[in-house]
Amino acid sequence: MSESGPDVSSTRRPLASYVGRRITPTNDSNSEENDVANFEYFGLTPRGPPNLADFLEVWNIEMHSNPEGVNRKRHHTELYDNEHLIVRRGQPFQITITFNRAYDSAKDKLWLEFLIGRYPDITKGTYIPIYIQEQLEKGKWGAIVESAWNNTLTLSIISPPHCIVGRFRMYVAVMTPFGIRRTERDKDTDIYVLFNPWCQEDTVYLPNAGENEEYVLNDFGRIYYGKFAEVTSRAWMFGQFERGILESCIYILDRARMPLQTRGCPVKVSRVASAMINAKDDGGVLVGCWDGQYSDGVAPTAWNSSVEILLLYSETHLPVCYGQCWVFAAVFNTVLRCLGIPARVVTNFSSAHDNNANLTTDIILDENGKKDTNLTKDSIWNYHCWNECWMSRNDLPPGYDGWQVVDATPQETSEGMFRCGPAPVNAIKHGQVCFPYDAPFIYAEVNSDIVYWNRQKDGSLIKGDVKTQEVGKLLLTKQIGSEGSQDITDQYKYPEGSEEDRMAQGAAIQYGVKKEQAVTEDPMDVLINMHVPERILLSTNFDVGVEIKNNSSEKRSMTLHLSGSVVFYTGVPKIQIKDKTMKVAVEPHQVYQTQVKIKSKDYESHLVEQSILHFLVSGNVTETGQTLAVQKAVTLQIPTLNLRVEGQVEYGREVTIIIEFKNPLRKPLEEVVLRIDGLDTLKPKLKLFSIIPENATLTTKELFVPWKRGPRKLIASLDCSALRQVVGELELNVM
Amino acid sequence: MSESGPDVSSTRRPLASYVGRRITPTNDSNSEENDVANFEYFGLTPRGPPNLADFLEVWNIEMHSNPEGVNRKRHHTELYDNEHLIVRRGQPFQITITFNRAYDSAKDKLWLEFLIGRYPDITKGTYIPIYIQEQLEKGKWGAIVESAWNNTLTLSIISPPHCIVGRFRMYVAVMTPFGIRRTERDKDTDIYVLFNPWCQEDTVYLPNAGENEEYVLNDFGRIYYGKFAEVTSRAWMFGQFERGILESCIYILDRARMPLQTRGCPVKVSRVASAMINAKDDGGVLVGCWDGQYSDGVAPTAWNSSVEILLLYSETHLPVCYGQCWVFAAVFNTVLRCLGIPARVVTNFSSAHDNNANLTTDIILDENGKKDTNLTKDSIWNYHCWNECWMSRNDLPPGYDGWQVVDATPQETSEGMFRCGPAPVNAIKHGQVCFPYDAPFIYAEVNSDIVYWNRQKDGSLIKGDVKTQEVGKLLLTKQIGSEGSQDITDQYKYPEGSEEDRMAQGAAIQYGVKKEQAVTEDPMDVLINMHVPERILLSTNFDVGVEIKNNSSEKRSMTLHLSGSVVFYTGVPKIQIKDKTMKVAVEPHQVYQTQVKIKSKDYESHLVEQSILHFLVSGNVTETGQTLAVQKAVTLQIPTLNLRVEGQVEYGREVTIIIEFKNPLRKPLEEVVLRIDGLDTLKPKLKLFSIIPENATLTTKELFVPWKRGPRKLIASLDCSALRQVVGELELNVM
Repeated sequence: MSESGPDVSSTRRPLASYVGRRITPTNDSNSEENDVANFEYFGLTPRGPPNLADFLEVWNIEMHSNPEGVNRKRHHTELYDNEHLIVRRGQPFQITITFNRAYDSAKDKLWLEFLIGRYPDITKGTYIPIYIQEQLEKGKWGAIVESAWNNTLTLSIISPPHCIVGRFRMYVAVMTPFGIRRTERDKDTDIYVLFNPWCQEDTVYLPNAGENEEYVLNDFGRIYYGKFAEVTSRAWMFGQFERGILESCIYILDRARMPLQTRGCPVKVSRVASAMINAKDDGGVLVGCWDGQYSDGVAPTAWNSSVEILLLYSETHLPVCYGQCWVFAAVFNTVLRCLGIPARVVTNFSSAHDNNANLTTDIILDENGKKDTNLTKDSIWNYHCWNECWMSRNDLPPGYDGWQVVDATPQETSEGMFRCGPAPVNAIKHGQVCFPYDAPFIYAEVNSDIVYWNRQKDGSLIKGDVKTQEVGKLLLTKQIGSEGSQDITDQYKYPEGSEEDRMAQGAAIQYGVKKEQAVTEDPMDVLINMHVPERILLSTNFDVGVEIKNNSSEKRSMTLHLSGSVVFYTGVPKIQIKDKTMKVAVEPHQVYQTQVKIKSKDYESHLVEQSILHFLVSGNVTETGQTLAVQKAVTLQIPTLNLRVEGQVEYGREVTIIIEFKNPLRKPLEEVVLRIDGLDTLKPKLKLFSIIPENATLTTKELFVPWKRGPRKLIASLDCSALRQVVGELELNVM
Repeated sequence: MSESGPDVSSTRRPLASYVGRRITPTNDSNSEENDVANFEYFGLTPRGPPNLADFLEVWNIEMHSNPEGVNRKRHHTELYDNEHLIVRRGQPFQITITFNRAYDSAKDKLWLEFLIGRYPDITKGTYIPIYIQEQLEKGKWGAIVESAWNNTLTLSIISPPHCIVGRFRMYVAVMTPFGIRRTERDKDTDIYVLFNPWCQEDTVYLPNAGENEEYVLNDFGRIYYGKFAEVTSRAWMFGQFERGILESCIYILDRARMPLQTRGCPVKVSRVASAMINAKDDGGVLVGCWDGQYSDGVAPTAWNSSVEILLLYSETHLPVCYGQCWVFAAVFNTVLRCLGIPARVVTNFSSAHDNNANLTTDIILDENGKKDTNLTKDSIWNYHCWNECWMSRNDLPPGYDGWQVVDATPQETSEGMFRCGPAPVNAIKHGQVCFPYDAPFIYAEVNSDIVYWNRQKDGSLIKGDVKTQEVGKLLLTKQIGSEGSQDITDQYKYPEGSEEDRMAQGAAIQYGVKKEQAVTEDPMDVLINMHVPERILLSTNFDVGVEIKNNSSEKRSMTLHLSGSVVFYTGVPKIQIKDKTMKVAVEPHQVYQTQVKIKSKDYESHLVEQSILHFLVSGNVTETGQTLAVQKAVTLQIPTLNLRVEGQVEYGREVTIIIEFKNPLRKPLEEVVLRIDGLDTLKPKLKLFSIIPENATLTTKELFVPWKRGPRKLIASLDCSALRQVVGELELNVM
């Protein structure tokens, strides 16, 4: 009688984790393996070693894993800098086995075994015996003989379009009368199986080739930031094909202890990854930090590439410092594209964040119509970046396939959501926020209203103005096949005020998204407007224009308060730099205009990384009590890094890159770090300049030996505590 | 010009947590407060102290918080052992204020202020000024004058039926020409606001008074366990009204850092609580352990009451060791009832657990039809306990109000779900598993099939029998107002094989719940059955009967394998105790019967806490290849503790309780702990017996002074490593 209890001796984890609860621990890591018997005897053990001379013996296995070879070209995996065979699921690939003699289909019984993780199990899809058949069957693992020549046998193997994504190890098994004889464990025959956007039966199927080219295969991209009226962008190196990145992406899922049997589902994989990109809760990739103190890490604005971050994480197994929303989104994008899930980075301009699915952002004005900075606790992010990934949602009723929002930035909401999505973009558009995952939060990010409250002497609030068009004003992503931006606002929202918009809002409110009712006010007969120059260079003076239009046939008077603040990109004020009160009277049907001067010295020393200033003009009309309020954010233009190349750029031949930068501040820059990605192999080139004097121009040269042909991009950033987000890029065409 | 940046000085948390990201930290704890100014000057500060003699001064505030008083009776909160006023939302309550002189509504302007947490905010519902009105308005905070007499003023105050649940602090504010004058911070005027199942506008409204009596107010309950054919139960003390429990429940939500502004929503509160009851991830209440090694804590079977666990947690702030599913469910039930959410503990007999929404549980038989213990990785839990809580689901389309499944037992599934639900029971029944939260998992727990696979020599599996009626066989909860059980299986499932059942399964599969197709086999002409005695006492020998019926007109032969194992309640085998092979031939239309003897000495020393044995008989019919398989679990009867009382039980007068127990094992019991709950105040009475010899009967006495009148229950457990889950109870009626 043998013990059938849990196999305690062979586990490396503490007992308490599974004994009594599971028969074996969960199989949740690509990097943990069980040995497989090289010879599995059938019942009776023969005396002495069995005579196996008659039976097939495997001499060699050729995986055809060369990037230029037939498998990787056909599977769109030739770009991965990796020796292993990398294939996409649901699509045949070939391997060639050399035996000691020719294969005889009538006599020889052999099969392949694919295994993943520990305790592989045939019913869980983690142990897969693959038999040689007459024909490949769609939707199932299988193999057919492609060709047999002398002692070699070339097999064509197919995986089902829903199979596990990860690193499989492979054995060849031969049946003998004494038992099953297997090849030895050989890491060279390991196979990576990825999602397949080119396969119609895969849930991530994306029919348009141009889209796949961009959303799966493009390893560079563009991230939009700044503010609605003044969009800026920077280049980013996703680098999903660089050496070590595929292993890093799989390590992230292993670190999350995601059971292998569930890794065929892109809904679950993207959800787990959204949790793991941020370090909150689970020791994930990036630590979020918004406070401007980054000296013990890298400032979020200084990164140019996901490669450095992912490699640091998988080497040290420690979260990397620091990220903000676009860094989370860029790294997440690398992971999704690397695993084969079509993905893009999206920027939502004026994002109502951290809002607990509340559709209002509250701004409190005091009795004088001036913003009460003690009572106003809400902010609108100037922009917020998240990701979209493309998949069918078989877990939902029809209508929600396609782009799904996933967000890896940790959110400070009711459920401590350090994961978010996938939420169907189409559900957001229609207010159908009752479907998983986390749709109400994303709905509120693009649809909240701004409510101005007037605080009375006794502490009570009376609702003033409600602005319904300030949030989610513009959603951008990079265009397919070009460096331009694509406006995808209409994928998230119907036109403001349309019947469909009204219906979508009704649906969202019905499903518990909270909204303040707009006040039905007397017609507003005074209009207020604010103007700021289109492009304001850092360290220059400029004027803020205020315009009051009296549409009534009576005189109107008011006390206006203009407040200017340096803000973080989250809309959180750092410091107030301007506070001006203006008494204004406007004759009937007249327009009053005034200018307020903002001086460089007022803001320069207070700026935080994104150089954003925020202005609010507010007040009450004396005669009618009407609340006037208008706010605008200004992103100051930071000078860019100027990159250029000297001479011809040829494969394998050294070229010189010249980088120029002029200090725009009226003070020296200290401890300046220049970071250039794309120059060399994986790690960025870092250069430290201890000081760049006032008004000085820095010119520095870098040597670069192109190691890949074709178009190539260098991305550079300059960072110091006084000035951040200085970026530059250079496109090269390597001959 | 004043700085408007974040008020860094007043925060107690590390800067990095919010600076730059939020204007203030999140308001997420009842126990963190900001001071409120006792005098808030209006603009101009008068010279010298203002002359306030003319204005109302508060001398005393009477909260009418006496349990016998008008507020707590009407609000069904008189049972809480707590000095504070405890009210339910959406329902008026009274307070009386005594001033230095009579209140004059024409002259005096005063209001109340309710505050909760830090950085209270009027737009978030965490700072509430309450003005005296002519009439109370449903759905809003408000106050009216109930009566005014001499210097006293009695106010009737109402909260909205959706307001935050927690501990509010109260101030009285009086308007003077110089500013607002407030009462001092006084903890005696703190008010607990709870959910209100008696209020029609509350989302937890439960119209039936008997149901509220049971699901909100009953502080004792009954938990079902054992196995389908042999249900056992034990009494449990929920103790939601005991001293310190309400504070513990609020501490749990504070510990989860759940933002206060979201604590009015029972969907969110129950979801956060489901995560916090287990210690995984978040340092919650109970550590789960299933391995039988509990010497550094309390064995899960030894607890009788949630009170000890919750108080230990809130005193030490450390997770309590150890829990299994019924302990998680019982403690969760206490928390839900304490906060005012109607709740009950449900037991699902034969629960397919840890299953990643897979509808199959796989059992692998080898070529000889014998269970392959190396390859079979799945188990069915003999039972699993979860909770249901009652609420409207305004976040979903109509049809999903009512009971919701929430499960606090940490699940080892794809997403590392250490929280589960609320999932509408009605959505489970109809297979509508596309709605949040976690419905596919619960659907699979009650609907999986058991699939028997026959493993071939080459490792491939051929599907044998599929049993569709083994899982989710019975769902029980305690009856309303009695100690009996209520079968609620029909609330989760339509009758097996009905058209509605077929449709519900179709819907669930459409939404991604995975199911193996049943094989369309030749008609099965051989039937197998197994019999075990109804009640088997621990340490007795017994017979397992096997019956083979040949319905064909030919002879049928087979080799049957009977395997018996000691299993955990999770169905995980600990050790095989019987392994018998039987060659059987049955003539046409005949029945073959045999008995297999199981001896006490075979299993006694291997038993784990729930004393469950599991038997499987399997084999293949030689002539037809038909797979025969039948399995049964047996729960051995553990002797109970016998509790009785000597003489009359009168309030305040000492009585003697006699506890008797006979050791059923053929060996001495060592280090025996007797635990009696309900005897004394909060802590259980523990008694240690170093040894109870073989066959000996232990008799021990306890003195008890009843301190509450009416029906009362004592619950006892006896625990040692050789014998667990020995329980007893005694109902008393205190005169």
